[in-house]
Amino acid sequence: MNRRKFFRNGSLFTIGAAVMNPFQGSANILDLESANKNKKAKNIIILVSDGMSTGTLNMTDLFLDRKTGKGSNWIQLYKNNRVSRALMDTASASSIVTDSAAASSSWGGGFRVNNGALNVSPEGKPHLPIWQKFKKAGKMAGCVTTVPITHATPAGFCVNSKSRNAQDDIAEQYLEIGFDVMMGGGANYFSSELRKDKKDVFSAYKSKGYQVVKNRSEMNAASSKQPILGVFADDALPYYVDRNSDANLQQTIPTLAEMTQKAIDSMQSSKEGFVLQVESGKVDWAAHANDVAGLINDQIEFDEAVKVAIDFAEKDQETLVIITTDHGNANPGIIYGKQANTNFDSIQKYTKTNEWILNKINKDYTVLQVKELIEKANGHVVTEEEAKTVLSYYDGLHQEDGLYNYKKLPFKAFAEMQQQHNSVGWISMDHSADYVELAMFGPGSELLKPFIKNTDLHYLMLQAAEVENKF
Amino acid sequence: MNRRKFFRNGSLFTIGAAVMNPFQGSANILDLESANKNKKAKNIIILVSDGMSTGTLNMTDLFLDRKTGKGSNWIQLYKNNRVSRALMDTASASSIVTDSAAASSSWGGGFRVNNGALNVSPEGKPHLPIWQKFKKAGKMAGCVTTVPITHATPAGFCVNSKSRNAQDDIAEQYLEIGFDVMMGGGANYFSSELRKDKKDVFSAYKSKGYQVVKNRSEMNAASSKQPILGVFADDALPYYVDRNSDANLQQTIPTLAEMTQKAIDSMQSSKEGFVLQVESGKVDWAAHANDVAGLINDQIEFDEAVKVAIDFAEKDQETLVIITTDHGNANPGIIYGKQANTNFDSIQKYTKTNEWILNKINKDYTVLQVKELIEKANGHVVTEEEAKTVLSYYDGLHQEDGLYNYKKLPFKAFAEMQQQHNSVGWISMDHSADYVELAMFGPGSELLKPFIKNTDLHYLMLQAAEVENKF
Repeated sequence: MNRRKFFRNGSLFTIGAAVMNPFQGSANILDLESANKNKKAKNIIILVSDGMSTGTLNMTDLFLDRKTGKGSNWIQLYKNNRVSRALMDTASASSIVTDSAAASSSWGGGFRVNNGALNVSPEGKPHLPIWQKFKKAGKMAGCVTTVPITHATPAGFCVNSKSRNAQDDIAEQYLEIGFDVMMGGGANYFSSELRKDKKDVFSAYKSKGYQVVKNRSEMNAASSKQPILGVFADDALPYYVDRNSDANLQQTIPTLAEMTQKAIDSMQSSKEGFVLQVESGKVDWAAHANDVAGLINDQIEFDEAVKVAIDFAEKDQETLVIITTDHGNANPGIIYGKQANTNFDSIQKYTKTNEWILNKINKDYTVLQVKELIEKANGHVVTEEEAKTVLSYYDGLHQEDGLYNYKKLPFKAFAEMQQQHNSVGWISMDHSADYVELAMFGPGSELLKPFIKNTDLHYLMLQAAEVENKF
Repeated sequence: MNRRKFFRNGSLFTIGAAVMNPFQGSANILDLESANKNKKAKNIIILVSDGMSTGTLNMTDLFLDRKTGKGSNWIQLYKNNRVSRALMDTASASSIVTDSAAASSSWGGGFRVNNGALNVSPEGKPHLPIWQKFKKAGKMAGCVTTVPITHATPAGFCVNSKSRNAQDDIAEQYLEIGFDVMMGGGANYFSSELRKDKKDVFSAYKSKGYQVVKNRSEMNAASSKQPILGVFADDALPYYVDRNSDANLQQTIPTLAEMTQKAIDSMQSSKEGFVLQVESGKVDWAAHANDVAGLINDQIEFDEAVKVAIDFAEKDQETLVIITTDHGNANPGIIYGKQANTNFDSIQKYTKTNEWILNKINKDYTVLQVKELIEKANGHVVTEEEAKTVLSYYDGLHQEDGLYNYKKLPFKAFAEMQQQHNSVGWISMDHSADYVELAMFGPGSELLKPFIKNTDLHYLMLQAAEVENKF
């Protein structure tokens, strides 16, 4: 008997100690490579957990594993050896630390641009966005997200704009180009009541044949014969954990997985295929707020959308699924200590985000009311001193700044307080320069090398789909 | 012409915009798989950057790339598609956040043990350490490190001990078992003048035929005919950046790369092969101290040892090289901001670690002297206020704690001050639960799945070397 073969077939592990053989039981890379080789990706689904540091992915997998006995769908793909993986350098033209506009543009336009810009070079030159390229190649194209559909990450695949802030204009550009399924938040940029210029952009979509849907049941009822614009909130959708603890929100707001499924259902009959971007935008917002319940639960929502995409791609056999993030944010992690396990597990009891808690409190609250509110939302005892500290930020004397913190609430102070109870730490309330995790499943995944620059992804998507880059 | 072939041979990228094809020019995974399949690993070199968060790997690659135009050897292996990679779960039996003793034991013994223990189960059962298994299989075995050679990471591959703190005992165990090359710091546990029991363990090694070497030139002169004990400092070796800014230390203290080369040279003629652990132990210590110059430069020292190992393995063709860390620590990262690039680049001017600076200062220093000392060591202007803050920790009134901070110096306060100048943030001064990066090169690397538990590595090493687990 060939000695190597003897060892390779696992006998090694039955002779010795009673341990499992971790190297059996699933397809190996060799098989995956062969299966995908020379197969064209008719469809592409790219899932982006915005601002997901490696620690966010890791903590969420640990969280799920400890809560349910089963980790995340993302990491399960690794355990089953079903994807190719890379580290990705996320820098922009102007900085080693990108913002989401430059990050999405690097994938969307194939070139690094300055932070804040959408597919417009530092010299003012536009780069044709990749979803427009795929439209020209005959594919249907769409985006779904938990933040405004006009926000940086979807916009970076769809339009050119000197500034990511031009969301009013971006809403109109989408219509002009004619994307097939666009869903998320952002009524602020479509509604005549909410737009600065009072234009009724919703009506403009309707008169061009779009189905405009504004809640979960309208979305479910929409037909796949006509394009869909879905806008389910004025700004971003609520955080997943807040939605799940509110019966009314569960009724009216679709999950990211549901939007993903709807988008696939609406575009899958396209003869030339389709491309879809799925963004979990508030993983980034939660990191900016050091809001651990927001972070982990929105990452779980993202992970459920990953399952929808993989389930479809498995059956379809012609879909490349890309799972990644655009940059790190706040580099969260669980910190060493005697109580690390118990503390980390206590987050399972959080029924509300810090955003929900801190928006609920106002200056008329008593210390006791603050104490009770936090105890109910976080499931652990809060000292009077802690409640006092939080309340002190509502007296108008001191306040916090920060991206997306329009009301100047004490997110940092509150997270520091929580850290004593949950053992999760953060390096800051902003993006980091870390290289990030990227995984691919299906035809085209064999093209991925273990380290890429963000811009490489643009050309890889075209190459996988066999769309020539002549536009 | 086959359409797929047309696209795959890169024509896609010459027709369209003038961009590079990032998917050409190196071996692909398929080739690597085939090359290593069914080849036995006669030798194993495992390189451990202790306490290396993903951010440490990333920052060091960015640092080198921006300083020299060439990134790290570790990431270059990814760029050239020459290794297999995994994420590794690092938990111990007692906690989701491991210490280095339990971490090394998971690899060394194949079982998770409680934090603090070395290959002794929570029930008191010993697990035979893997370097002893390989010795029994006829291989030579050794360890080199920048911390005491009796420290947790080398000890976890070599011995059983209820407590990692029993370093006096560990020094004697090594001799009894008879490892072939053991080099690092730790005279405290070998010298009759420094040991608590006054035993002359150095002499005991000599009388058993060891060459005992205590500086760089003695190491270089050592023969490969006899085993080597190299002890180059009472405790740990100096940080790499401090060594490199001191002519005397450069003369007397070998680098990790030099120790690695010496160990390989001494053991490579072994008929049954050899196994070698290479540890950069002070990457962990620097993270505990939030000491950025210590962290990045010791990671660079580690990276130079990676090159030594890979260069040998490339020629040798029978060596499995494993490159990894035992756990995250402090999750450092570069934080978003207008000055992020300039700030991060300023670390290139740091000629001394924070450890060196803070040990140099004493209570008799004036504010001006503190200001000048830091300015010289860090290459940027320090305000009087900042110098005063640092000096205030030397008045005996307030102090900091922390692992390895025996003198209660203000590492945290100093790092927070530095952050304004270098844009690097930290979540804490302790280990994190993050899954960590692992890469493999050479025969056996094809066994690696994209996600493993730390204990899996024990069995993978045995399997790659075709050593049956019957002991």
